[in-house]
Amino acid sequence: MSKARFITLEGLDGAGKSTHLAFIRRYLEQAGIDTVFTREPGGTPLGEKLREILLDIDTEATLDTETLLMFASRQELVSSLIRPSLAAGRWVVSDRFTDATFAYQGGGRGVPAERIAILEQWVQQGLQPDLTILLDVPLEVSQARLSQSRLPDRFEREREDFHQRVRQMYLARAQANPGRFVVIDARGDIDAIQQQIAAALARLQEA
Amino acid sequence: MSKARFITLEGLDGAGKSTHLAFIRRYLEQAGIDTVFTREPGGTPLGEKLREILLDIDTEATLDTETLLMFASRQELVSSLIRPSLAAGRWVVSDRFTDATFAYQGGGRGVPAERIAILEQWVQQGLQPDLTILLDVPLEVSQARLSQSRLPDRFEREREDFHQRVRQMYLARAQANPGRFVVIDARGDIDAIQQQIAAALARLQEA
Repeated sequence: MSKARFITLEGLDGAGKSTHLAFIRRYLEQAGIDTVFTREPGGTPLGEKLREILLDIDTEATLDTETLLMFASRQELVSSLIRPSLAAGRWVVSDRFTDATFAYQGGGRGVPAERIAILEQWVQQGLQPDLTILLDVPLEVSQARLSQSRLPDRFEREREDFHQRVRQMYLARAQANPGRFVVIDARGDIDAIQQQIAAALARLQEA
Repeated sequence: MSKARFITLEGLDGAGKSTHLAFIRRYLEQAGIDTVFTREPGGTPLGEKLREILLDIDTEATLDTETLLMFASRQELVSSLIRPSLAAGRWVVSDRFTDATFAYQGGGRGVPAERIAILEQWVQQGLQPDLTILLDVPLEVSQARLSQSRLPDRFEREREDFHQRVRQMYLARAQANPGRFVVIDARGDIDAIQQQIAAALARLQEA
């Protein structure tokens, strides 16, 4: 049995995370790998309550409070699901994780990266994903996809330059952590994208 | 006009905080001091939502998550109420503040004080109460008072040795911060207790 792995999927809303998560699920299932799927914020009963508060467009929270709530949800997920699952030999795939806090609260809204890093260390105490798949699309693509689907939540309603800064921070994080990140141009042909995802997963199985 | 002051009231449930808060309110009103009263966890719309989650006996949260939620509620209170009020020259009185986290999550439940101190610094960035009134009573007194009143919440249901450790941590914090703390033996005669509170408030007005 290969070592349990922790995989995160990141990207702007509209980058295609749901579609490609379904592909990752099929891939790992076919490989016979026992995997837990989760999402952030949320993923635990308490986390889902906090997710509701965080995404509610009527919630008034300062930026610092929002950041702490993100990490409270993350703490619960790490302590009650991610660590126990990995310890039991199960893989974990999370739809977003700490890179999203650096991108949205940091890049998007301006919380200094050093302040986010303090909470990251407090909560994760060294735990990091083995693989982070960043689905990267230019803003016009993600926005066009979103406008066709659902009503926007509190984050999706932000202005265009906000999302531009989020994207840039994601790319900067990828550049700073090349061993962990795989950046995929998610505009293109679905088959081509999924080949790249499959290749990244295969490397992880062998490692 | 004297400088705006930040006062916190601490102690076990059953120590008489509500009674003595009412006295503090009357005292400051008669002194013509414009004062904002608040409480923790809570004190803001978001904080009250978190208070509900935290005190709900059905909430499953790890100790670290609980600690982060306490500080998320505190961050909102500091940013949206305490700092703006002090800046506008108003005094602020809070029913519990960070000493309660050191006492309950730290002393009571075992979160290392260094970990609490990291979040304290993250949230408060140097802000500390000018005066902390600790109403100290032996456990048998607070328990006897409580059993006559209401149904216990998640914290009140803890075992006796938990509350013993909470009390000891409160006393240790007071000993380590003698300039800020006034410890009052809250068993005794109400008039005597209120004289001590009045004296502490008077010193603060003059300082």
